[in-house]
Amino acid sequence: MKTDTWKNRDWITTFDYTKEELETILHLAFELKERFNLNEPHDILARKTLFMIFYNGSLRTRNSFEAGMTQLGGHAHFLDTGKIYAPTFGSETKDRHSEDIADTARTLSRMGHGISIRCFGDAVGWRWGMGNQVIREFAKWSDIPVINMEDDWYHPCQAMADIMTIKEKLGELAGKKLVMSWAYAPDTKKPLSVAHSMLPVASKFDMEIVLAHPKGYDLNSEVISKVKNNVTQFGGSFTTMDDMDAACEGADVIYAKSWTATQFWLPIQEKLMEAELKSLAEKNKDWICDSRRMALAKKGAIYLHCLPCNRDFEVTADVIDGPQSAVFDEAENRLHAQKAIMALLMK
Amino acid sequence: MKTDTWKNRDWITTFDYTKEELETILHLAFELKERFNLNEPHDILARKTLFMIFYNGSLRTRNSFEAGMTQLGGHAHFLDTGKIYAPTFGSETKDRHSEDIADTARTLSRMGHGISIRCFGDAVGWRWGMGNQVIREFAKWSDIPVINMEDDWYHPCQAMADIMTIKEKLGELAGKKLVMSWAYAPDTKKPLSVAHSMLPVASKFDMEIVLAHPKGYDLNSEVISKVKNNVTQFGGSFTTMDDMDAACEGADVIYAKSWTATQFWLPIQEKLMEAELKSLAEKNKDWICDSRRMALAKKGAIYLHCLPCNRDFEVTADVIDGPQSAVFDEAENRLHAQKAIMALLMK
Amino acid sequence: MKTDTWKNRDWITTFDYTKEELETILHLAFELKERFNLNEPHDILARKTLFMIFYNGSLRTRNSFEAGMTQLGGHAHFLDTGKIYAPTFGSETKDRHSEDIADTARTLSRMGHGISIRCFGDAVGWRWGMGNQVIREFAKWSDIPVINMEDDWYHPCQAMADIMTIKEKLGELAGKKLVMSWAYAPDTKKPLSVAHSMLPVASKFDMEIVLAHPKGYDLNSEVISKVKNNVTQFGGSFTTMDDMDAACEGADVIYAKSWTATQFWLPIQEKLMEAELKSLAEKNKDWICDSRRMALAKKGAIYLHCLPCNRDFEVTADVIDGPQSAVFDEAENRLHAQKAIMALLMK
Repeated sequence: MKTDTWKNRDWITTFDYTKEELETILHLAFELKERFNLNEPHDILARKTLFMIFYNGSLRTRNSFEAGMTQLGGHAHFLDTGKIYAPTFGSETKDRHSEDIADTARTLSRMGHGISIRCFGDAVGWRWGMGNQVIREFAKWSDIPVINMEDDWYHPCQAMADIMTIKEKLGELAGKKLVMSWAYAPDTKKPLSVAHSMLPVASKFDMEIVLAHPKGYDLNSEVISKVKNNVTQFGGSFTTMDDMDAACEGADVIYAKSWTATQFWLPIQEKLMEAELKSLAEKNKDWICDSRRMALAKKGAIYLHCLPCNRDFEVTADVIDGPQSAVFDEAENRLHAQKAIMALLMK
Repeated sequence: MKTDTWKNRDWITTFDYTKEELETILHLAFELKERFNLNEPHDILARKTLFMIFYNGSLRTRNSFEAGMTQLGGHAHFLDTGKIYAPTFGSETKDRHSEDIADTARTLSRMGHGISIRCFGDAVGWRWGMGNQVIREFAKWSDIPVINMEDDWYHPCQAMADIMTIKEKLGELAGKKLVMSWAYAPDTKKPLSVAHSMLPVASKFDMEIVLAHPKGYDLNSEVISKVKNNVTQFGGSFTTMDDMDAACEGADVIYAKSWTATQFWLPIQEKLMEAELKSLAEKNKDWICDSRRMALAKKGAIYLHCLPCNRDFEVTADVIDGPQSAVFDEAENRLHAQKAIMALLMK
Repeated sequence: MKTDTWKNRDWITTFDYTKEELETILHLAFELKERFNLNEPHDILARKTLFMIFYNGSLRTRNSFEAGMTQLGGHAHFLDTGKIYAPTFGSETKDRHSEDIADTARTLSRMGHGISIRCFGDAVGWRWGMGNQVIREFAKWSDIPVINMEDDWYHPCQAMADIMTIKEKLGELAGKKLVMSWAYAPDTKKPLSVAHSMLPVASKFDMEIVLAHPKGYDLNSEVISKVKNNVTQFGGSFTTMDDMDAACEGADVIYAKSWTATQFWLPIQEKLMEAELKSLAEKNKDWICDSRRMALAKKGAIYLHCLPCNRDFEVTADVIDGPQSAVFDEAENRLHAQKAIMALLMK
């Protein structure tokens, strides 16, 4: 258990957190889950403030952070960027509508104890990677921890809830087969953040990882190389395939969800190629997690999804609402994992 | 005083709460009012979370629930449906704009201790009764108490504040004459929720109840039959009339406010018949609570209104701002009654 | 230190607060700053509620009030006027969109402990002074303290943070030269609130005050006369000039920011004269606080700005982000000054 490396650190990706640090978070998350269940006080952040800046809508993230801060004795501000001056890169600010991120970050740093941010898609003109850059700009200027509540590239809080759920349901992580699979959804603009965060975490725990997606839905090569390095260092394996059936065979965990095809986005393209996105997705409508595919997995395998989901597209209702689904445990674990992260960083 | 029937129960209508349970709520409400007045701590819901989902605007409801949770030691989230994924029946969800109520309810159930909802009118396409159905769908899926903050049919929190105010001002309820009267307002789309909730509560307390409205503004027949059953069981009387003057004679309480004529709504009609609504209302512009009508009531009679009101349409300024008006006591009692309800259900 | 004059008082301008009262606020602000720095509890407003009503956007004000209430043990409601019924003068209310201020104020008075309001510009149809009138209407009807979070005329919380910052950085206030200077900004509709609040406070502390602005940007004559009276009573001096260079010479503090020219506004004009506003501003583009002008000031002089600022228009980046800038200390002091004000008024 690491005790000395937390103070005022940012949580933007899990990349620069060691395995021991991630284990320290998980350990505390389970401890806080028990105290919550027993309704025992745990005022670790008494009277402290988290500033939650949302460029995008949110149900799970907002409510788990806000309830989490209350449970820790503090309070989280819900900051809709339409109601503050939307924090923007200095060169793009407009009077009475936006303000330089550098100024926002330095101001909030003086008034509270953490800044959490969600930013992707529409909010940054559908420019790929800009959401992550916005968060990094906050981190550059903030003197208090900056926490990523999901950008276009990463969703590290989700990954901690995911791995916590797998551990809770299946026990020992080592040797378990985790399938991260693309799935079809009518909305073709979903971030890659979940896969980009989950795989780098899972690969630190000696798991047998399979990444499955149709051609054209590749993950970022830097992320893939981090996953491969982890497997070399910590054991397990990493395989990619473009056959969902083959991937599901013998799985312990099937995490099937949709993500976009980044080759059709800015800045690679001059403008977002919506028709091409649509057309590629339509060719892969059979990428759905249904009971037939769950039957290919191990008995006792679980289904994960970060939610919100597209029922009957990404996953059939009988699977996500069935006995193998752990999606509401997974949603609940957002609360406990994030409380652990906040407690460690903002204490 | 009932102590054993509260845990995790929903508060959607008062129908399935017994007289003893309603008295238990009232008793606690007065107790909490005293503690508030003395500024004595009463951390009954310390660190607990209420999720307040508002499909519609609100002043009194939102602020009384949010301040109430603070006073009880917890915190209430203000959730504007435009900022979460608006909870919707599964078949009506739209990507990145809405989410299945079943998923929203099951997610929030894991993170906090109560879900309160306001839903009617515009938010459900002006389909009559749909607001109530939305709340019932939440209750179906939620493992934590669901609290009705007003739908198109019911406003049970308001009814508890109303009866509390009558008791506070007039003492013994038995034998008091309560007039619930329709009144004219330019806005012809107001819910029936207040009358539909107030009468079923008042009729449990041996009161002489008069319901007055012009032809075409009938309350729901099921509600009326519940009121009649209550009168049979608990005493008092129930009379309807279409003459506001006659109704006001000898009254102890005049509760005059506007409500819509449901026969012009979906699903009875194919579309909301705004012109017919308007025209029926215009014929009844003389249904106003003014000083002449207050003079028909008993000396010491009080005037009630849930607010916001249409001054000079529903009620003249000299009445609502005069010595017989108890509307701000009534608004304050929202706070205390709701704190009692939350304390009992979410403890 | 005054102890007997605070209970339930409004904070709309600093005009009717004595020098001793302002000193009491400053003293407590520094005390609370130290406790915040040491993370020592100071639950002066435990479980109490502040209702923050925002007609306009806000970053610093909202977050400093909301975090401040948390630190004091209470909670602040963020009330966007689009989500409550926007409080409006009775004659201007619209069904389901707005509500009489008299009703809003009397309702909230029953549920919590303070009402804070920001209101100017767009929210009141660009009618000059109407924001202040809205706040005064609240104060007329509210039984709990009304706190001005900035209107078109005044920003008294900012003034307390400003004077606190000067005291913190420069020590003794008496004899220091304070320059309040207009500066150019592309947005020509900024309130005069900062200058109108800062000068009446500073002039109670025996300072050498210089007000500098181009012709046409005069402050309100009533404010000016209060400043002059203060100088007579408390010492120091007050000079006005239309030469920014001359003003900056030998300054201890340069507070350079933009404000509008009220002679082009309603109610003086029939409609807001945007072209004339623009044209007058464009003639004075050289009113900028740059390093050359900072060099005219004393060694060790500080630069102040309430933020958000227009970099490269009101002030160059090298000044506002340089070693003489105290703008983030100033922003932080909003928190501590406002906590002191709330603690004294709402205790």
